[in-house]
Amino acid sequence: MTAEELKERLERFRRGELSADDIVSDIRAAPFEDLGFAKPDHARELRQGLSEVVYGEGKTAPEIVEILRGIAARTSRPAIATRVSPEKAAEVRKSIPEASYNAVSRILCLGDAPEPDGLGAIVVATGGTSDAPVAEEAAQTAELLGNSVTRVYDVGVAGLERLLAHVRELQSASVVIAVAGMEGALATAIGGLVSCPVVAVPTSVGYGASFRGLAALLSMVNSCAGGVTVVNIDNGFGAAVAASRMNHPAIRNRA
Amino acid sequence: MTAEELKERLERFRRGELSADDIVSDIRAAPFEDLGFAKPDHARELRQGLSEVVYGEGKTAPEIVEILRGIAARTSRPAIATRVSPEKAAEVRKSIPEASYNAVSRILCLGDAPEPDGLGAIVVATGGTSDAPVAEEAAQTAELLGNSVTRVYDVGVAGLERLLAHVRELQSASVVIAVAGMEGALATAIGGLVSCPVVAVPTSVGYGASFRGLAALLSMVNSCAGGVTVVNIDNGFGAAVAASRMNHPAIRNRA
Amino acid sequence: MTAEELKERLERFRRGELSADDIVSDIRAAPFEDLGFAKPDHARELRQGLSEVVYGEGKTAPEIVEILRGIAARTSRPAIATRVSPEKAAEVRKSIPEASYNAVSRILCLGDAPEPDGLGAIVVATGGTSDAPVAEEAAQTAELLGNSVTRVYDVGVAGLERLLAHVRELQSASVVIAVAGMEGALATAIGGLVSCPVVAVPTSVGYGASFRGLAALLSMVNSCAGGVTVVNIDNGFGAAVAASRMNHPAIRNRA
Amino acid sequence: MTAEELKERLERFRRGELSADDIVSDIRAAPFEDLGFAKPDHARELRQGLSEVVYGEGKTAPEIVEILRGIAARTSRPAIATRVSPEKAAEVRKSIPEASYNAVSRILCLGDAPEPDGLGAIVVATGGTSDAPVAEEAAQTAELLGNSVTRVYDVGVAGLERLLAHVRELQSASVVIAVAGMEGALATAIGGLVSCPVVAVPTSVGYGASFRGLAALLSMVNSCAGGVTVVNIDNGFGAAVAASRMNHPAIRNRA
Amino acid sequence: MTAEELKERLERFRRGELSADDIVSDIRAAPFEDLGFAKPDHARELRQGLSEVVYGEGKTAPEIVEILRGIAARTSRPAIATRVSPEKAAEVRKSIPEASYNAVSRILCLGDAPEPDGLGAIVVATGGTSDAPVAEEAAQTAELLGNSVTRVYDVGVAGLERLLAHVRELQSASVVIAVAGMEGALATAIGGLVSCPVVAVPTSVGYGASFRGLAALLSMVNSCAGGVTVVNIDNGFGAAVAASRMNHPAIRNRA
Amino acid sequence: MTAEELKERLERFRRGELSADDIVSDIRAAPFEDLGFAKPDHARELRQGLSEVVYGEGKTAPEIVEILRGIAARTSRPAIATRVSPEKAAEVRKSIPEASYNAVSRILCLGDAPEPDGLGAIVVATGGTSDAPVAEEAAQTAELLGNSVTRVYDVGVAGLERLLAHVRELQSASVVIAVAGMEGALATAIGGLVSCPVVAVPTSVGYGASFRGLAALLSMVNSCAGGVTVVNIDNGFGAAVAASRMNHPAIRNRA
Amino acid sequence: MTAEELKERLERFRRGELSADDIVSDIRAAPFEDLGFAKPDHARELRQGLSEVVYGEGKTAPEIVEILRGIAARTSRPAIATRVSPEKAAEVRKSIPEASYNAVSRILCLGDAPEPDGLGAIVVATGGTSDAPVAEEAAQTAELLGNSVTRVYDVGVAGLERLLAHVRELQSASVVIAVAGMEGALATAIGGLVSCPVVAVPTSVGYGASFRGLAALLSMVNSCAGGVTVVNIDNGFGAAVAASRMNHPAIRNRA
Amino acid sequence: MTAEELKERLERFRRGELSADDIVSDIRAAPFEDLGFAKPDHARELRQGLSEVVYGEGKTAPEIVEILRGIAARTSRPAIATRVSPEKAAEVRKSIPEASYNAVSRILCLGDAPEPDGLGAIVVATGGTSDAPVAEEAAQTAELLGNSVTRVYDVGVAGLERLLAHVRELQSASVVIAVAGMEGALATAIGGLVSCPVVAVPTSVGYGASFRGLAALLSMVNSCAGGVTVVNIDNGFGAAVAASRMNHPAIRNRA
Repeated sequence: MTAEELKERLERFRRGELSADDIVSDIRAAPFEDLGFAKPDHARELRQGLSEVVYGEGKTAPEIVEILRGIAARTSRPAIATRVSPEKAAEVRKSIPEASYNAVSRILCLGDAPEPDGLGAIVVATGGTSDAPVAEEAAQTAELLGNSVTRVYDVGVAGLERLLAHVRELQSASVVIAVAGMEGALATAIGGLVSCPVVAVPTSVGYGASFRGLAALLSMVNSCAGGVTVVNIDNGFGAAVAASRMNHPAIRNRA
Repeated sequence: MTAEELKERLERFRRGELSADDIVSDIRAAPFEDLGFAKPDHARELRQGLSEVVYGEGKTAPEIVEILRGIAARTSRPAIATRVSPEKAAEVRKSIPEASYNAVSRILCLGDAPEPDGLGAIVVATGGTSDAPVAEEAAQTAELLGNSVTRVYDVGVAGLERLLAHVRELQSASVVIAVAGMEGALATAIGGLVSCPVVAVPTSVGYGASFRGLAALLSMVNSCAGGVTVVNIDNGFGAAVAASRMNHPAIRNRA
Repeated sequence: MTAEELKERLERFRRGELSADDIVSDIRAAPFEDLGFAKPDHARELRQGLSEVVYGEGKTAPEIVEILRGIAARTSRPAIATRVSPEKAAEVRKSIPEASYNAVSRILCLGDAPEPDGLGAIVVATGGTSDAPVAEEAAQTAELLGNSVTRVYDVGVAGLERLLAHVRELQSASVVIAVAGMEGALATAIGGLVSCPVVAVPTSVGYGASFRGLAALLSMVNSCAGGVTVVNIDNGFGAAVAASRMNHPAIRNRA
Repeated sequence: MTAEELKERLERFRRGELSADDIVSDIRAAPFEDLGFAKPDHARELRQGLSEVVYGEGKTAPEIVEILRGIAARTSRPAIATRVSPEKAAEVRKSIPEASYNAVSRILCLGDAPEPDGLGAIVVATGGTSDAPVAEEAAQTAELLGNSVTRVYDVGVAGLERLLAHVRELQSASVVIAVAGMEGALATAIGGLVSCPVVAVPTSVGYGASFRGLAALLSMVNSCAGGVTVVNIDNGFGAAVAASRMNHPAIRNRA
Repeated sequence: MTAEELKERLERFRRGELSADDIVSDIRAAPFEDLGFAKPDHARELRQGLSEVVYGEGKTAPEIVEILRGIAARTSRPAIATRVSPEKAAEVRKSIPEASYNAVSRILCLGDAPEPDGLGAIVVATGGTSDAPVAEEAAQTAELLGNSVTRVYDVGVAGLERLLAHVRELQSASVVIAVAGMEGALATAIGGLVSCPVVAVPTSVGYGASFRGLAALLSMVNSCAGGVTVVNIDNGFGAAVAASRMNHPAIRNRA
Repeated sequence: MTAEELKERLERFRRGELSADDIVSDIRAAPFEDLGFAKPDHARELRQGLSEVVYGEGKTAPEIVEILRGIAARTSRPAIATRVSPEKAAEVRKSIPEASYNAVSRILCLGDAPEPDGLGAIVVATGGTSDAPVAEEAAQTAELLGNSVTRVYDVGVAGLERLLAHVRELQSASVVIAVAGMEGALATAIGGLVSCPVVAVPTSVGYGASFRGLAALLSMVNSCAGGVTVVNIDNGFGAAVAASRMNHPAIRNRA
Repeated sequence: MTAEELKERLERFRRGELSADDIVSDIRAAPFEDLGFAKPDHARELRQGLSEVVYGEGKTAPEIVEILRGIAARTSRPAIATRVSPEKAAEVRKSIPEASYNAVSRILCLGDAPEPDGLGAIVVATGGTSDAPVAEEAAQTAELLGNSVTRVYDVGVAGLERLLAHVRELQSASVVIAVAGMEGALATAIGGLVSCPVVAVPTSVGYGASFRGLAALLSMVNSCAGGVTVVNIDNGFGAAVAASRMNHPAIRNRA
Repeated sequence: MTAEELKERLERFRRGELSADDIVSDIRAAPFEDLGFAKPDHARELRQGLSEVVYGEGKTAPEIVEILRGIAARTSRPAIATRVSPEKAAEVRKSIPEASYNAVSRILCLGDAPEPDGLGAIVVATGGTSDAPVAEEAAQTAELLGNSVTRVYDVGVAGLERLLAHVRELQSASVVIAVAGMEGALATAIGGLVSCPVVAVPTSVGYGASFRGLAALLSMVNSCAGGVTVVNIDNGFGAAVAASRMNHPAIRNRA
């Protein structure tokens, strides 16, 4: 029952065609979510921004085509599909040739990134070159969500001079996303260098006792540096969403 | 070697008392950190704010007394000690009677919380009453770091109507800190209701297969809601520090 | 905004004092949960039955006294506190002498168990004598929730003849609660003997590689017997609640 | 030794051809299970219903053909094989063209689902679309066991409004099967909304720290909502068997 | 229904007072285990030997007194209680002064060890002195079960010459019980030196990553030496029971 | 230095060509293992029996051919290779056509099993049909080591009547090897029925929380039945070696 | 800003073209790492030695070609790529035919191993033949880093005489690298035989409860032998680097 | 049989009182270890140095007194007991007043540390002040084993400037022992700064997901810095022994 429908029924109530009890019953009977009232108000913002993201893993190319087209039809923001394999991307692009695809981040995108409108830059830092797929998922997602992104890659703690060479970039960030596998020490080291929030992303890079990212996850969760919070292993996308929320407090205040 | 000392030596170089090689050697020989140049510039901000926190566990009362006094001597911000047992707090307060102590949060504090100067309110939500110690550690730390805090306690997902009754408070938050033990579902439920960052704090509340907070930690790290990041089990303090950084982006820009 | 308040406003709308938009806005503005409409309707049932249970661990005796009295004031059902230590129970009973306490189950109870009104009997079976506290928590909770309970204790699989001696009791049960620690084989063995649901409760009884109940939990979750579902380690209370729901389908239909 | 054989020997005893000791010895010597007396009496019910299910994983197509035909020969109930890959199903259907196959649930079935004869409807709910295979295994098994099934899919806690839109369906269920991966919060949220039993099925959907379903399993086992019990990761079949037992208490009483 | 009772009823059948159907029904109706026929025939042996062991942990002194007296009344074998604390033992011995107690093994015993009647000697070997409590539980249990026991203590692999000094004793054993904590290498080393069965007992001796015996357990289960089988952490008693069974094959043949 | 060489040198000592110190030095200088004295005396026995087993995993077909031929050249016992894939076996049999191969156990064998000469029969029991590969590895290895083997398959605890139907076979065993995956309850159930040693073999059969056999391993290690010892997951071979040692105590005594 | 550049600016300062403040600002403004002063001094040594190693996993053949050529252009030491598959190696060698490849260690190398210049020999010992790939990665890396290497393979603790046959080689080592999977007992046994440092490398060799090397890792970390330290599972390369550092203390002193 | 005894028997052989076979038999019959020949030659060195260490945990004060006195009687090196509680130490010192005790390291020592005779200094670094007990156990043990020790405490990676302030001390070390709990990042950071071996000691300092040192252990084992090897959680003693072996290569060569 939309607001318009409710108003119609109120008119009929005024005309005596419906009783007050009828109105109350109507509302009771209406499916919860159709009331349109108490709906979480962030839904709108999501509809303009985040909710247009498709998690591509486990979806077929035709499914992705259909969802992307649906998104494009109702929004001016870019429509994004994450974790799309090159093969699937190629298949999708037969139907939607204008979609762009990045083989490192495995992000398939329809539409351009908006102008950055966040507080500042999000720095995405990685421990090693193997962390690039996760880092690029984070970086490109952040850009598509309207953030300016600075990449500081391959600055693992095992070569501190590489990290220290980027202190200024790190210290000027609005948010840092620290992406690292193996022992995951990068998050703590960065946490100790900056005063902005640090979103740590453990990656499954490593072998043996890295246990597919568990070592890095535990390391990051135990970080003794202030301001470090953690997302799931290899979750570059989630880190970008969280960082983008931190970098867009104005949107919240305006809402 | 401070900047002043360097300038002095430069004068001596100009007077011919030192060679250029002497100057180069001087810098080489000076302890790295004493150069005063490349020092992480957040140190100052920390000195005004965060760095004044003492982790009280494992420290004796006399040690805490000494540290708190030292902090109070060099800063106008409150001096905070976390994880202080009631016995230890009583002993500290024999020496520093003006220190206040909260038995729930186990925070011992010398000085008053500053005026809130963040973007908005930090909402601290808990799943159950047993999560209060961790939640209060977060809430009081956040207040002492200059944040306005709203407490929304005992709104666990097992009684959704309790959570839904607070949707508006949650949706008006600048940051939400979601504190929950057992299955930790609160973070995801809140993450689905708000558009600000959510810092999730798993607690060790529970028994059996909660494995002292591991179940809640895994649950929160796997949250499929956007914007949720996680800190260590029972780490209310760390959650508050991270949330406060998110709530004070202006400080970063000013810095 | 209650239904009465809404009707009042509808009258004012009819009288032209409020517009249709006003009504829509009113509903929008009303706190979600106060609409009184979509509220989970089981709340009532819970209030009559289950919700009167207090988890005593971590609560002080005065807190328990206050909660039990509150429950007793608004319901005729027994008021129950679980996981109450003997010392705490003694202290509570100074204030509420009529409360009964069972040192094995650690249940403190104000009021008598109601007449059993379930489909049939709930059988509580244990592997060994050490499982008694968890089993009694389950059995007494089930009785307090209106179930007839049959106890079949110390029938662990290591002595199959003991279990087989009780086949008839097990096979006449409405629900079986299988309580076992160590290797937890009891749940599977019973699952293979009965055709009713079996709620398995792993206990922390054991040592070494029982890892405080983990071995039993994994064993029970992997049970290849049909109809076996599992609750948390040592969660006799939860098993009883679930079993009672299974044993009271009529209540659901009536509701 | 069947009852008939025993009677024959009793006649010979009466005729003096056998002594009382002979009879006692006979019984002693007879294989335990052939006595036909103490045999678990649920076997019959199983033979009519559940026991006709074949776990297809690890069996060859010819083996499945043979078993399904055997079942069909001795029962009027449908013969079911679970976890059958599309390739294997195609091969089986060359021999048994009348068998139906569902590629989502991977259930191969010979014969039609019986009329639902349970207490009420079993609601199968999922957190996300990726949980569909497990959910369909549960739903279709439940239907084949004589239950009416309502599907409420993709109502994960990260979007509470989706779940709340189905409160009425959930609250009218006889049993709810809650299927979810990642953080598994769905079971708790539903447990807090309904008063019937909830059978929780963790799924291996997720990545990283989901550890192939472990996070969801722990989350569900730790659920603080009443009436929630748990089965193995991805065990849609087992959940359906347990739920069907809960939904068919009459059968037990009649038996 | 005992054999005598059955014979009586057979007489009544012969006299025509009972029908053949009556006899069949009688047997059907008799509780499974009372038939006395199909009862596991090892029960007798157990009653003479093993079954007289009481697991003392979690039992009160009066309970132990009562059980031990009961055992002593119906058997000539020693009555054994394991895992009895010194305090509890002292209390028991006030009632049963003739009971002996060993503070290392924590075994309380009423009656003397029988003459060894096994195939050969059981060697109990330990890695370090801290393993003594578990080793003595094994050794004394084995003696009380009728085995000759040789102790070879403190021969951990970190000092191979200590182990090699006992090669002859080890090689002449009927069974070796290898007791070790920390890295548990002893079982493999002994397994490579002897050709008899080796029962490995991991102990919780160690710290840090020994995880209370898990490291030793995994090490022993992965032993690449032939003939090594493993029992639970700290389960000296269980090791002795298994080893005694291996050392008494004649009993099995006689039975 | 062999005994002959030592004797030669002793002669030279007697002839005065060498001093006593020379002899002592000779022995000191000789490589430890070449003394031929202290060598583990089971090596011989192993050479006749066990040591002829090749672990085929990770070895190429030509390597296996060479090793098997080497074994056949120096012993009359069968030469065994375990864990050989069908492809590898086919390749080996091109070179050694007389070798036999069993596709279930994946054992490749050159030569016939010897006459059983153990104390009695080894019973190999399994919980389900999927455990057959591990069970056959155990059974065939046991036969090749000179044991009579009885197979009791598919007698899982979830259908106790199946297990009980084989009580007599189990109770007449010299050793029982209990092979089971999933919840692994079989070992405990059998342990409670027999008085001989039970060697438990957890298998990786299962899914989800079976964690590739971990659940069964923990279950078996925690077995509260007497006489149960455990080997590694899927280690049918190791169980057979241990059981064979238990079944051949005479060999030890003769040695 | 190099030392030369700094000196230039000092000259300008002396000439009055720059103020002291200018100099201070210059240093402040210079990127941290370009100061050339505080740079970790081991970088040079690494550039000559260790840093020339490429971790080949996850890199394409063209990438490896380019990196190897770059290394060869600026150093006389061998350029090494580890974890290179045979296919990738073949592709690389099309471009760089003079590169050598070892299919066991999977090391691809351009240039010859230098003359050994360490303190003594590094002994690489393995428990079984399956550990060879990890052992060869260690051995060949150690040789390429300038160490003399002795291989003592297949000396697992399950056959102690094999290990003892090599006591002298082990005892004359400068460092021992002990490589073992399964139960990992080798490290402890060697640690008890030698007085030099032992670097233990757990391997993922094994199955079941070896959990891909976890059992060996825990075993080695818990070693009660003195002087044993541990690296990651299968990390032969890392063990060689550590051992080479131990074998080249002179380099450190010279630096 | 000592060398002297052997010589005596050789004389008798020369005199014809014994045959060559007698001599061979004598050696065969002599207990392995009494030959005195093949004994691991490091035993001597250990007897002078390391072997004099008593692991005090689980030993009574009288036991420690006796062992320390025994050591002091046969060696001039200090006699050391580790992990001695203050209470136990006080009791020991009633008997041995000249023993010194350090309450932080919990080391009880009889005799003075020898002059340092290693290659260089061992640097012991810690992440935080709470790591001091483990660090002091390492530092004092190293000193007692003849090493010069430099302490660099409280230089955790969360404040990189603290660590960098000590680069020169770290880079001049012969070996670094890196002691850290929580996320254990210190070992990697130091490993990236120095070219000597780094022995990493994870500590149990931390809470929640530190899992008593597991997080730090995994982090350190996964370190991507060269030259880092790891010991058990809190094993300061073991780290010192390993580091001392690395710092004393000359002793090995001399031996």
